[in-house]
Amino acid sequence: MSNLIGNRFRVLIYGQSHAPSIGAVIEGLPAGFTPDWDAVRAFMARRAPGGNAMSTARKEADLPEILSGLNERGETCGAPLAMRIVNGDTRSQDYAKLRDVPRPGHADYPASVKFGGANDIRGGGQFSGRLTAPLCFAGALALQLLEREGVRIRARIAQIENIFDAPMDYARPDLDAILSGDLAVVDSEAGSRMRDAVLAAKSDCDSVGGVIEGFAVGMPAGLGDPMFDGVENRLARAIFGVPAVRGVEFGAGFAASAMRGSAHNDAWRMEDGRVVTPTNRHGGVLGGITTGMPIVVRVSIKPTASIAREQESVSLSRGENELLAVRGRHDPCIVPRAVPCIEAAMAVALYDLIAERG
Amino acid sequence: MSNLIGNRFRVLIYGQSHAPSIGAVIEGLPAGFTPDWDAVRAFMARRAPGGNAMSTARKEADLPEILSGLNERGETCGAPLAMRIVNGDTRSQDYAKLRDVPRPGHADYPASVKFGGANDIRGGGQFSGRLTAPLCFAGALALQLLEREGVRIRARIAQIENIFDAPMDYARPDLDAILSGDLAVVDSEAGSRMRDAVLAAKSDCDSVGGVIEGFAVGMPAGLGDPMFDGVENRLARAIFGVPAVRGVEFGAGFAASAMRGSAHNDAWRMEDGRVVTPTNRHGGVLGGITTGMPIVVRVSIKPTASIAREQESVSLSRGENELLAVRGRHDPCIVPRAVPCIEAAMAVALYDLIAERG
Amino acid sequence: MSNLIGNRFRVLIYGQSHAPSIGAVIEGLPAGFTPDWDAVRAFMARRAPGGNAMSTARKEADLPEILSGLNERGETCGAPLAMRIVNGDTRSQDYAKLRDVPRPGHADYPASVKFGGANDIRGGGQFSGRLTAPLCFAGALALQLLEREGVRIRARIAQIENIFDAPMDYARPDLDAILSGDLAVVDSEAGSRMRDAVLAAKSDCDSVGGVIEGFAVGMPAGLGDPMFDGVENRLARAIFGVPAVRGVEFGAGFAASAMRGSAHNDAWRMEDGRVVTPTNRHGGVLGGITTGMPIVVRVSIKPTASIAREQESVSLSRGENELLAVRGRHDPCIVPRAVPCIEAAMAVALYDLIAERG
Amino acid sequence: MSNLIGNRFRVLIYGQSHAPSIGAVIEGLPAGFTPDWDAVRAFMARRAPGGNAMSTARKEADLPEILSGLNERGETCGAPLAMRIVNGDTRSQDYAKLRDVPRPGHADYPASVKFGGANDIRGGGQFSGRLTAPLCFAGALALQLLEREGVRIRARIAQIENIFDAPMDYARPDLDAILSGDLAVVDSEAGSRMRDAVLAAKSDCDSVGGVIEGFAVGMPAGLGDPMFDGVENRLARAIFGVPAVRGVEFGAGFAASAMRGSAHNDAWRMEDGRVVTPTNRHGGVLGGITTGMPIVVRVSIKPTASIAREQESVSLSRGENELLAVRGRHDPCIVPRAVPCIEAAMAVALYDLIAERG
Repeated sequence: MSNLIGNRFRVLIYGQSHAPSIGAVIEGLPAGFTPDWDAVRAFMARRAPGGNAMSTARKEADLPEILSGLNERGETCGAPLAMRIVNGDTRSQDYAKLRDVPRPGHADYPASVKFGGANDIRGGGQFSGRLTAPLCFAGALALQLLEREGVRIRARIAQIENIFDAPMDYARPDLDAILSGDLAVVDSEAGSRMRDAVLAAKSDCDSVGGVIEGFAVGMPAGLGDPMFDGVENRLARAIFGVPAVRGVEFGAGFAASAMRGSAHNDAWRMEDGRVVTPTNRHGGVLGGITTGMPIVVRVSIKPTASIAREQESVSLSRGENELLAVRGRHDPCIVPRAVPCIEAAMAVALYDLIAERG
Repeated sequence: MSNLIGNRFRVLIYGQSHAPSIGAVIEGLPAGFTPDWDAVRAFMARRAPGGNAMSTARKEADLPEILSGLNERGETCGAPLAMRIVNGDTRSQDYAKLRDVPRPGHADYPASVKFGGANDIRGGGQFSGRLTAPLCFAGALALQLLEREGVRIRARIAQIENIFDAPMDYARPDLDAILSGDLAVVDSEAGSRMRDAVLAAKSDCDSVGGVIEGFAVGMPAGLGDPMFDGVENRLARAIFGVPAVRGVEFGAGFAASAMRGSAHNDAWRMEDGRVVTPTNRHGGVLGGITTGMPIVVRVSIKPTASIAREQESVSLSRGENELLAVRGRHDPCIVPRAVPCIEAAMAVALYDLIAERG
Repeated sequence: MSNLIGNRFRVLIYGQSHAPSIGAVIEGLPAGFTPDWDAVRAFMARRAPGGNAMSTARKEADLPEILSGLNERGETCGAPLAMRIVNGDTRSQDYAKLRDVPRPGHADYPASVKFGGANDIRGGGQFSGRLTAPLCFAGALALQLLEREGVRIRARIAQIENIFDAPMDYARPDLDAILSGDLAVVDSEAGSRMRDAVLAAKSDCDSVGGVIEGFAVGMPAGLGDPMFDGVENRLARAIFGVPAVRGVEFGAGFAASAMRGSAHNDAWRMEDGRVVTPTNRHGGVLGGITTGMPIVVRVSIKPTASIAREQESVSLSRGENELLAVRGRHDPCIVPRAVPCIEAAMAVALYDLIAERG
Repeated sequence: MSNLIGNRFRVLIYGQSHAPSIGAVIEGLPAGFTPDWDAVRAFMARRAPGGNAMSTARKEADLPEILSGLNERGETCGAPLAMRIVNGDTRSQDYAKLRDVPRPGHADYPASVKFGGANDIRGGGQFSGRLTAPLCFAGALALQLLEREGVRIRARIAQIENIFDAPMDYARPDLDAILSGDLAVVDSEAGSRMRDAVLAAKSDCDSVGGVIEGFAVGMPAGLGDPMFDGVENRLARAIFGVPAVRGVEFGAGFAASAMRGSAHNDAWRMEDGRVVTPTNRHGGVLGGITTGMPIVVRVSIKPTASIAREQESVSLSRGENELLAVRGRHDPCIVPRAVPCIEAAMAVALYDLIAERG
């Protein structure tokens, strides 16, 4: 089921940008759990288009409505927890032309081939970034359950265009140093230059990409599985479910390719009776299994494909090249709003590991 | 099932480095197919430790023995095709100490936690690179089936340590330009310097990593699924199943993070009645669905963790730090032998997409 | 996912009897399909509590509301089709006592153990027969898709208490002979006696069970799989998902146990160029694979567990035996309303087979 | 994967009757478990064709050979446990004609359609009862693991043709009263008449069917899931994987259809601080979840389809009716040998439930 993830904590996401609703159905929540709904709404608010210049003008209240899964005391009851978010403020007429002239960098064309032209083109349909709202809902619940297990997840913007946030210590990341607000960085000055870069791109009718770095601290050692269900495989499956992700790497990642083993291997060391590594180039996972060190994953986010400037495309009906200027409301950089989405994807995948352990 | 991959073309891999056998069970081969066994053996030979200085001294004939799945005419009969490779030339005594003193950069420690000390430590057990032999077997069959569909897969070494092969055109990659032999590069001179780098590391009792670039040419547009079963998610799940992979990126990948949308988007264009893109920074996938352009995936391989020089570790039994010098036979660089493994992982994942289409 | 069924046509059901909603999410509908919503509503109406004396007094309009999955033309668009039915006319106070004193023959007690007392007890929670409404929704869509493939499904009441409907020819069942109306039988006189039996039980504050016989005509030969994904395994998984089912048998079923092979085997015969069997004791499936003959499945439905007369139970809190008289509104016989549910379960399982074929 | 069963204790079965091997791969065994191999062999011997007149003359040593999954101490190591049984004493020439003239009551014809004539016809191929040998291997391991949890499984022959074994108390079944030996009954006199019935059928070149009743005692309350992953659904999926099964019912099963609720409901009662039922018509499962009472499942086994007397069939190549006398070696009644197969199927499904609980 391509919209379903998880072995034991399972999240199914449904909806299209301009359908009546988007939502999620979650199976595998422990029974008797009372979610902190304020925390859920606060987490989802981080993803919602904000009141700032970096994000789309589309207004999305995105208040989740619970359809099932709670008992009369408001606790999870063992039945699937279903929710929906009613779609509002949709301007479907913006999208009519895209059936014929697909946007560069978008799923319009391959989706049209796959679904024989029946794909929902309005607002990007099921390919819209809006579908990350139910993912964030599920992630917010998973984060609360992880917290009960002593696991904390946080992501930050490591790079936007060619501007880099200050490095963080992968072995002992200070998650509290990550700023809240519209740009999750540790170096506010870098954040300030990132904002400038986004606004510069916007005024050029253009967009920029970036890198998000996610941390999970407190995962016990010994979770995960070899081969195809390793922690990397699971996280990659979840994270590539977030639109615009182009690459996923763990620990030193691609930088490891240029290293020698003696420089890349992390030493094992005893510390207060625990086995740790003073460095964390392995990113908390070896052989698909957690080592107990922080899980560090880096995610490449491409520049928003929808840009206002004219681009080369084709008319599918006439079989001819055609120029296209994309209308509609789009973020010049989705990296800031993708931060909670990456946290949610991590939380969903990692809580599943905890839930599998029983 | 962590050792199982695929929805419709399903491959289950079993075995440990020093168990009686390693092998695979494959479900979903089309009935009536007569595999070209010479081609299977030739493909597997590319992964087997060679007679050259870059690879381990362990001898592995790795001849696959078919256990089931063929009818009396030698065709696939619809039943699972099971195979095994008998393990030979094992020196299990090399590994006894590692139960207590785990190797840096290896799964010894997390596996010991996960399996309560019962994990098979001999030769790396189920975490051994040997398990890629049955993956290559499955991949070799998938490659033959893909070829019947006009799909060709080939990977090359794009980088070893800090040496780069010449760039290839992602939109129209010349797969025939990739050299056969022990180093799959397009620039033989670069290959020669890579070989020097590997041997230099070897003589330093060290190892090096690299980057592999995989291409799939001829995949029809419209295959794959949105969200969690996208082509990227599927390929990532398969590829992270190959030991030592630290990162996976598609098309421009992490480089896209530094780009603007106008530079990253590939224009759509009509060419001989087909919709194509003159460039291929999207790597053949948008919204999780194939565009018909070549699929381009880049894979980071870390330097071999097993190095002969002394490293810091711990004694799990005594709870103390302890120095470790890893014995045994190990490749100073696994990148060359990983090339067919990446091809196999791609083939297994991509043929599954074809098989799902029906 | 225990609320999910299907490999390629996948149906997830959510909700509890007194939650805000019940509903379904369906993945794998062919894109570009325009459902006949009148037919869906008509099918669902067959399951809904009717205006007759045999069914509960609870009123359920059960109008499905589509949440996602359609494009602007009302066609399926490839995204999951999600729907909900708003629960109304709930009287939750009827159920408060059951948390402590579980009903005989109900899931109250095992659910309480499984979910640590957090299960939703109101109206039977997720164990309620109400959850068959979304199953019927999914089944109604599957029936339309099956019809396009020339497959027709129909079930009838073969037995209520000790009253039997007239036998039908399993090899060439006349589905049109099955009466519509509140009792799906072929012999109206038997139906009349069944009605009397139900009303007699009702006036005794008791309930009765029965047998439903389902037929699928027009399934092509060669669908299904050996071993654990055979047509029987798939149908059994779907049908045991309907509450109150106690047994499932195919063709001659349990009667085959008393037969000799010479009496049980169906001869093969050529008829108009097709391979058929003049009899159909095999029920249309051999080795888990369809033979092209009608699929015949018989389903045992137990008498409604909720009866008004006093029964022996226990107080879980006090650890003592206690008498219980179940209040609430319940059908004295659920067999008539279960008929479309069995048809729906069959349709969901069998259309999945068609969809897998591609 | 049609040859795979289980969520957490997963068993994949491969092979054909006359392939080089048949076997199984098992994932999810707890690490550190030392199987009692003598007990495994003893259990498998109960299924193997015996030296008595009721079973086939084919000799099958059926000694399992372990391919992987154990560490150097012989304990399970967390890797999949793979095994094979080498096929011997095959007489493939017996089956050549069946490609064209399918046996009545067999999968020959539907398999030929499904696999385009490439199915392995020799010895029934993957549809052979021989495939229950690896199922029994997996079941024997599951039985040992269940025993550690206080769960005991045993099946008996309740009926052969029209001869019935003495009734057993479903609420407190005396498993030790079931005789070992070639006929697992509690009433040796009934067993004796069953033997006569089988031999009478054999001398008539015919066969007989029967009913097997399986019991699982000691399963804790609260295991299983509602809807499609209920205990009944899981057991039915496993049990319909055994060839020749035509029906599955739980507790009172089809007899419940003729009952009133007051007669069918089992009262709850406190007994030594536990919630029990004095009767067990519900068969240990309500709402898909265990109640803690013995699980009771009844299984209809059809008469062996392969009988020596001439039967009506068709020539697929000529499209004409044709008479067929089946040669080869076949059991006149497979019920006695199916008893351990049903126990194995139950054990595999029920241990999976235990393993899921963690």
